[in-house]
Amino acid sequence: MLEHELRELLSGVRSGTVDIEKALQRLKDLPFESLGFATVDHHRGLRQGHLETIFCQGKTVGQIREIAARLLERGSNILATRADPEVYQALSELTDDLEYHEPARIVVLKPRPRTVSRGSILVITAGTADIPVAEEAAVTAEAMGNRVERLYDVGVAGIHRLLAFRDRIEAATVVVVVAGMDGALPSVVGGLINKPLIAVPTSVGYGASFGGLAALLTMLNSCANGVVVVNIDNGFGAACCASRIIRLAEGKGD
Amino acid sequence: MLEHELRELLSGVRSGTVDIEKALQRLKDLPFESLGFATVDHHRGLRQGHLETIFCQGKTVGQIREIAARLLERGSNILATRADPEVYQALSELTDDLEYHEPARIVVLKPRPRTVSRGSILVITAGTADIPVAEEAAVTAEAMGNRVERLYDVGVAGIHRLLAFRDRIEAATVVVVVAGMDGALPSVVGGLINKPLIAVPTSVGYGASFGGLAALLTMLNSCANGVVVVNIDNGFGAACCASRIIRLAEGKGD
Amino acid sequence: MLEHELRELLSGVRSGTVDIEKALQRLKDLPFESLGFATVDHHRGLRQGHLETIFCQGKTVGQIREIAARLLERGSNILATRADPEVYQALSELTDDLEYHEPARIVVLKPRPRTVSRGSILVITAGTADIPVAEEAAVTAEAMGNRVERLYDVGVAGIHRLLAFRDRIEAATVVVVVAGMDGALPSVVGGLINKPLIAVPTSVGYGASFGGLAALLTMLNSCANGVVVVNIDNGFGAACCASRIIRLAEGKGD
Amino acid sequence: MLEHELRELLSGVRSGTVDIEKALQRLKDLPFESLGFATVDHHRGLRQGHLETIFCQGKTVGQIREIAARLLERGSNILATRADPEVYQALSELTDDLEYHEPARIVVLKPRPRTVSRGSILVITAGTADIPVAEEAAVTAEAMGNRVERLYDVGVAGIHRLLAFRDRIEAATVVVVVAGMDGALPSVVGGLINKPLIAVPTSVGYGASFGGLAALLTMLNSCANGVVVVNIDNGFGAACCASRIIRLAEGKGD
Amino acid sequence: MLEHELRELLSGVRSGTVDIEKALQRLKDLPFESLGFATVDHHRGLRQGHLETIFCQGKTVGQIREIAARLLERGSNILATRADPEVYQALSELTDDLEYHEPARIVVLKPRPRTVSRGSILVITAGTADIPVAEEAAVTAEAMGNRVERLYDVGVAGIHRLLAFRDRIEAATVVVVVAGMDGALPSVVGGLINKPLIAVPTSVGYGASFGGLAALLTMLNSCANGVVVVNIDNGFGAACCASRIIRLAEGKGD
Amino acid sequence: MLEHELRELLSGVRSGTVDIEKALQRLKDLPFESLGFATVDHHRGLRQGHLETIFCQGKTVGQIREIAARLLERGSNILATRADPEVYQALSELTDDLEYHEPARIVVLKPRPRTVSRGSILVITAGTADIPVAEEAAVTAEAMGNRVERLYDVGVAGIHRLLAFRDRIEAATVVVVVAGMDGALPSVVGGLINKPLIAVPTSVGYGASFGGLAALLTMLNSCANGVVVVNIDNGFGAACCASRIIRLAEGKGD
Amino acid sequence: MLEHELRELLSGVRSGTVDIEKALQRLKDLPFESLGFATVDHHRGLRQGHLETIFCQGKTVGQIREIAARLLERGSNILATRADPEVYQALSELTDDLEYHEPARIVVLKPRPRTVSRGSILVITAGTADIPVAEEAAVTAEAMGNRVERLYDVGVAGIHRLLAFRDRIEAATVVVVVAGMDGALPSVVGGLINKPLIAVPTSVGYGASFGGLAALLTMLNSCANGVVVVNIDNGFGAACCASRIIRLAEGKGD
Amino acid sequence: MLEHELRELLSGVRSGTVDIEKALQRLKDLPFESLGFATVDHHRGLRQGHLETIFCQGKTVGQIREIAARLLERGSNILATRADPEVYQALSELTDDLEYHEPARIVVLKPRPRTVSRGSILVITAGTADIPVAEEAAVTAEAMGNRVERLYDVGVAGIHRLLAFRDRIEAATVVVVVAGMDGALPSVVGGLINKPLIAVPTSVGYGASFGGLAALLTMLNSCANGVVVVNIDNGFGAACCASRIIRLAEGKGD
Repeated sequence: MLEHELRELLSGVRSGTVDIEKALQRLKDLPFESLGFATVDHHRGLRQGHLETIFCQGKTVGQIREIAARLLERGSNILATRADPEVYQALSELTDDLEYHEPARIVVLKPRPRTVSRGSILVITAGTADIPVAEEAAVTAEAMGNRVERLYDVGVAGIHRLLAFRDRIEAATVVVVVAGMDGALPSVVGGLINKPLIAVPTSVGYGASFGGLAALLTMLNSCANGVVVVNIDNGFGAACCASRIIRLAEGKGD
Repeated sequence: MLEHELRELLSGVRSGTVDIEKALQRLKDLPFESLGFATVDHHRGLRQGHLETIFCQGKTVGQIREIAARLLERGSNILATRADPEVYQALSELTDDLEYHEPARIVVLKPRPRTVSRGSILVITAGTADIPVAEEAAVTAEAMGNRVERLYDVGVAGIHRLLAFRDRIEAATVVVVVAGMDGALPSVVGGLINKPLIAVPTSVGYGASFGGLAALLTMLNSCANGVVVVNIDNGFGAACCASRIIRLAEGKGD
Repeated sequence: MLEHELRELLSGVRSGTVDIEKALQRLKDLPFESLGFATVDHHRGLRQGHLETIFCQGKTVGQIREIAARLLERGSNILATRADPEVYQALSELTDDLEYHEPARIVVLKPRPRTVSRGSILVITAGTADIPVAEEAAVTAEAMGNRVERLYDVGVAGIHRLLAFRDRIEAATVVVVVAGMDGALPSVVGGLINKPLIAVPTSVGYGASFGGLAALLTMLNSCANGVVVVNIDNGFGAACCASRIIRLAEGKGD
Repeated sequence: MLEHELRELLSGVRSGTVDIEKALQRLKDLPFESLGFATVDHHRGLRQGHLETIFCQGKTVGQIREIAARLLERGSNILATRADPEVYQALSELTDDLEYHEPARIVVLKPRPRTVSRGSILVITAGTADIPVAEEAAVTAEAMGNRVERLYDVGVAGIHRLLAFRDRIEAATVVVVVAGMDGALPSVVGGLINKPLIAVPTSVGYGASFGGLAALLTMLNSCANGVVVVNIDNGFGAACCASRIIRLAEGKGD
Repeated sequence: MLEHELRELLSGVRSGTVDIEKALQRLKDLPFESLGFATVDHHRGLRQGHLETIFCQGKTVGQIREIAARLLERGSNILATRADPEVYQALSELTDDLEYHEPARIVVLKPRPRTVSRGSILVITAGTADIPVAEEAAVTAEAMGNRVERLYDVGVAGIHRLLAFRDRIEAATVVVVVAGMDGALPSVVGGLINKPLIAVPTSVGYGASFGGLAALLTMLNSCANGVVVVNIDNGFGAACCASRIIRLAEGKGD
Repeated sequence: MLEHELRELLSGVRSGTVDIEKALQRLKDLPFESLGFATVDHHRGLRQGHLETIFCQGKTVGQIREIAARLLERGSNILATRADPEVYQALSELTDDLEYHEPARIVVLKPRPRTVSRGSILVITAGTADIPVAEEAAVTAEAMGNRVERLYDVGVAGIHRLLAFRDRIEAATVVVVVAGMDGALPSVVGGLINKPLIAVPTSVGYGASFGGLAALLTMLNSCANGVVVVNIDNGFGAACCASRIIRLAEGKGD
Repeated sequence: MLEHELRELLSGVRSGTVDIEKALQRLKDLPFESLGFATVDHHRGLRQGHLETIFCQGKTVGQIREIAARLLERGSNILATRADPEVYQALSELTDDLEYHEPARIVVLKPRPRTVSRGSILVITAGTADIPVAEEAAVTAEAMGNRVERLYDVGVAGIHRLLAFRDRIEAATVVVVVAGMDGALPSVVGGLINKPLIAVPTSVGYGASFGGLAALLTMLNSCANGVVVVNIDNGFGAACCASRIIRLAEGKGD
Repeated sequence: MLEHELRELLSGVRSGTVDIEKALQRLKDLPFESLGFATVDHHRGLRQGHLETIFCQGKTVGQIREIAARLLERGSNILATRADPEVYQALSELTDDLEYHEPARIVVLKPRPRTVSRGSILVITAGTADIPVAEEAAVTAEAMGNRVERLYDVGVAGIHRLLAFRDRIEAATVVVVVAGMDGALPSVVGGLINKPLIAVPTSVGYGASFGGLAALLTMLNSCANGVVVVNIDNGFGAACCASRIIRLAEGKGD
């Protein structure tokens, strides 16, 4: 509709019914969004690989269902994260075309076969209890079209176990390291590679882990160069950043 | 020397003076580093672009000078970060071939003309007081061979100022956003682009900024997808990660 | 009754049965509250628009019911905040003349048609999960006789969405901005307007949001001028302040 | 210059040398700022009462001087806060038309006689050591054209001292309460009035005051309705908000 | 029994069968407790008014029951604090001679009529939600033989309500002030009296009250002279200290 | 002067020139302070033993001097705490009748021979570095007319050293225990006595003592009954409370 | 299999089919783990006394069962810590040869009669509520073949109770001190002995104990020499360290 | 002298001049220390290897000098830690027989040739800036008669550097690991050995290292079994514990 208004204005200028100075004035006064707000969104959708996401935590099941229904109408692929089984239940009433990744707590609606990236994202965990967060990262990255590899339970207290996989680690394009408790794993892995490393602290631990604070601080203070950090338990955020890097590495940055 | 030992061992196997089982045993017992430790380091140097770094904070001027002298003998380029004028003074006695970037508090020894990356790293600050940290990032990234652009003092409280530069922001390959106080800038910039964004909280502020903690927490909790964070005032770390991404984007990942 | 005593004393002075010095002495000794304590309360009731409030959290259902019953006898309008459904249940046994605003967790007893303010309070949220706190603010403000507008889910990571509503934002008399996670929204909105802005951090988030601490610190450190802050999840407090400002703006400050 | 471009474009449309569809396209592509960025700023200046502010903390004297010089050229009034004597020294080399408020650490450049508001802002402190922060608030508010009253050293531990001034407190349009240590004063003052109250915690105190954190938390948890809070020691921010409220109260909200 | 050994030793010395040097040696080697450990405890019991206490939180119902049974055999009066109804249930199987103070969460076993102190402990609360902690203090103090008065719900936001009771406050020997949220009440009460004031922060509140931390810090930073503080929700501790002061005041300090 | 007004009003009532209802109205409107504000203060002075105190920290030397001069005119004894040598210098220009207690950082102006309490306050420290805070308590308590005993450097890590003084500890009327680092001393001393014990955490320590926070938390969590706590380094506050208790114990509670 | 490859390589060298330089190159390229990774693990098992441990917290019952099954196949003894009754239930389906230590929340699978250490580990608690953590330490240490003694409920507030056991304390080889709330016990015990003392803070407490933080800080700041600390509630960790010390003391350090 | 009193008492009993019951009473009343306090201390001195220590931080130079002088008279060896050059200056006036270890900030008075332990303490640091704390540990341990080895600057970000020294690490009896920033080193070293490992966090770092808090939390949460931790920068404490373990390992536990 805005386009319609703009076209009308310009037609008025062309035909002389609208004075140039007045047109100038009206252009300045146009609300910002008129100039392509929807378009920008559209572009954004394209660039993000047609994937809309719903962060379910803090929303009611009713709200989640409503948002999903609206997005499905638009034909979007949808990733619902932090989704409990009830959310899955509610969403499965909207469509049959969905998958529930239980450990990752992710529902993917309308998952599509897609071209997979050449480069890979390697997701590493220090322990078994870190796996849910790692799966949130892995499933998200896969849904965004990336090749994902998993290397779980290779914490630094058994350094030989970790070093045994050095080849796989060096072969990855981007590495996501997920660790709770002391959060020391990214510092060691970061010293082995010269690729980007995204560290994800988890709330795994007890006592002075203070809900993941200890691991978070460890990672922020990592002595290894180039380690970057996301929020505690934020596997999704790590996957987003990793996916953007993969796209750049494959020349699809724009 | 180790190589010498290994060769001797293998010669003994060849000549029959060393029993195969015994050789097997000795190989298992060899200290790990014997198997190419120096080589690995060498590769590393190559991959990092021949740049050695000295983090000066917490070291005495004497220690810094000694480390720098040793590295210069090896012919390395050197980046000395968190370098006060006295450090610069001491290092300038070692060689004339050095530059002091005062706001960045960085001394570059033996800076070399280098091929510059096609893609660029855009360093943005929210305020004027964030510039020293931004310069640490920018000078480091440049020393690593990257094209760097600067966009300073475009905080979110004047959102039009920021949006006026949307083109430059979208044109960058990687964006580094440096902000103290409320640390809100990465959330806004992160919503404008689909490239990797590295957020650097600074200790700029007072009162409840608690030395940069407020900005750090803001960035970790950013609602924008794909924002990753480094330590407070860690311009160097942001540059390392950004540089690694640029290398991947230019097909130099290995 | 005190008034009665005072009158008696003064009559005694008039008639000469009470000595002036003695009257002076008695006046000094009168307990403070005797001099208009009730009156002050009465004035207060008037000024607050006849609205008594019960903060239910931490009180037993029995206590809440008792307090409400006593206030109803006095003929007061009552706002019961942080009211769970059981509280609503208990209060609905006292009177039929009540409303339950479930998302806001507020029960209004004896709600009255009232003259509504000309100026308006605009309540904005960054996300969907912030809505309950926003509704606490909105319903409270409405119960206090203010015109309230709502603008929900316009977080800074999609800055165009927010800017599209710039006109509505600029048209408000007071703005209440409700945000969890990074809490960055007030900094951006604060830069768009020159009206008072009350920021409400929410406990929405996870990990390093530390129950709303991150958003609170962000808001306290806001780079936008004139942003003021209330406690985490304190929609009620924001509404109180906003309502007082509206009254001033409409010349009803006293 | 942009205006120039826009006019050219519209002229092209008028003359027929530019096709309407193409013009439409170019308008969508124009960088946002082209559409009145400067204008917006100009309006802003007008609304804020022609007063530009420089927050000096964290900036070098050189930077401050340069910013001030640029603003003086534009003819702005300037408020330089957190200004040490050296800053004053440097600024006094730019113009003779300036005042230094030493306790407030504020330099006002080109202070002008101005119409003063009818309503008043009352600035109260709990102790003597809170005065510098209170003066930052008072001097800022005065520079913005408000009538300011001061009531210092009336902490709650001597409640009679405070209550003795109840009339002056009730007479104010807005109250700014400045307190360190236990930060209890706003809770008491807030109970006495039904006007907006802005609480400013200060870093005054020792031990478990943790640099003002104790006072900040007290104020955020105030039991008095309608208390809003700014950052520790942020007298300036309190003055900004108070000034905006005064403008609304005097019908100058727009 | 130890006494028996000591007496034997001394008899040996007297009779000459034990050498003085050897007796000296044995005395030095005697385990400390032999010298009156039980006696000390006995004295202690006497001095504390024959009252043993069991802090139930963190103990299993089985452990509490067992400890209580053992103490009952010794004939002690017992105060079981932080006692849930199940604890009361379990203890009522041991004896009929017990009382359950539900709001205080205290079970008193074998409560006795006792001489009551002349001086009184006044327990004040800021709000209704603080009453359980206040009752813990009041019931404990009563069980220790003190006269206790209660003054509830007189927070500082309604200062007149509080001042109306100034006479009662001044008449008390010791004052215990219980407050959550902003914890400001002790500062005001402390300014009204020159008696000892024990402040008890409570975990009442939400958001930035951080489980009572805000109130605790407020009280530690109180500007009123002579305010002392106990742990969050520690009504019991406040009563112990108050009771000791009352005993001193009544000349029963030893 | 107020008295004058009141008398006039009553005279008007007596003479019939002032109507009773009108007098009633005026009485209600009289500012609170009119009714004996000065008197209250006077009483207070009397009850506190004619001692005024100036907390010097955060005040300028000029302010301190001015306050002291005003108090000297009134004839008060003055205690200036947290007084650096410069403060002493400035105060010694006002009068010769002063003492400087350097370790305690206290200046006493017009110290007077006074009757000393029978009961005593025992001040104990864990270490040598805690002595300045202990001296602040001791000197303050002495200035308030109390008998003070000192027992320094008897930390719990050498429990025998402490127990050797059990008699002196038990003989005291009130005990003040001053400790930094682990702050464990009050827990042990509290178990030895049944008198009030005031614990003073100090900022002595390093690393995880976090400026006295560790000692503060230890004391708040003390397992010994009846331990009460003041702010970190607040020797003055401990002395105030101890002095009030001594007064009660000596029957001078009012 | 690797051994197979290595043997083949050496055979090739022996027979002359593999050139020495080439063999050298291949050896350098062999992945690290090839050189005895399993062996190292095997050695480790031996040195740790054939005991594998599963930390159950954060793992699903399914994961725990699977890990346990795999370890049982290898013939390991297993210690499952932080094991709830459901875990015990699940593990008891794998084998009958198991014990459940309920207070310690430990399941021991295939417990074996073993030679017990001469030296002993003494586990001390301050209170009754600390016993579960103490039992985690005690049961773990016993499972590792150590003689363990227990001394429970001897907190510092009753110092005589503790000192009565000085002989037992001095007789131990290593002491583990478990305490919540004020965490003061290790400081006192540490002053009594010259053996290693491992302090275990517990989350026992309320209010300002902040989940064990208070006790942790106390212990880290202990004035007693040689106190070392583990994580809050980490009885297992304390037992591991104590066991290693015992092995050294018995000459089994290697 | 006490011994004298005791002997007198016993003589009285022997001679019949003192009644047994009365003697019994007096024995119970004797202050505890009378029974061997000095002796205990003496024993302690012996067991600690005749080494007295003065922690200089927080003491005045005068106090340090006085304590040292008194200890020298007793003939003790003395270790003065956290000693600045001025302290060294002051102590060198007492005796010529002293050494200053500047990086360790330790003065050893009357250092003696001593038998050195067979077992060794290996002190490892992550970085160069951690060396002062490591030296505090090393010099202290040496002064206590232990063989000490040093391995500096082998942080986990260069894991090969560390692993190259695995033999030395495994050969040590006790390992002390000193690290700031991310504090990850103990987790890796702990996985390589089965000896006791004492972790020392340092305040080395910036930003979110929060003065060593990050490293401290990392170490407390270490995934490696048997890691124990001391206070930030507490090299002395680590040495004390390590020395006690060495003594046990060499059969000198008593």
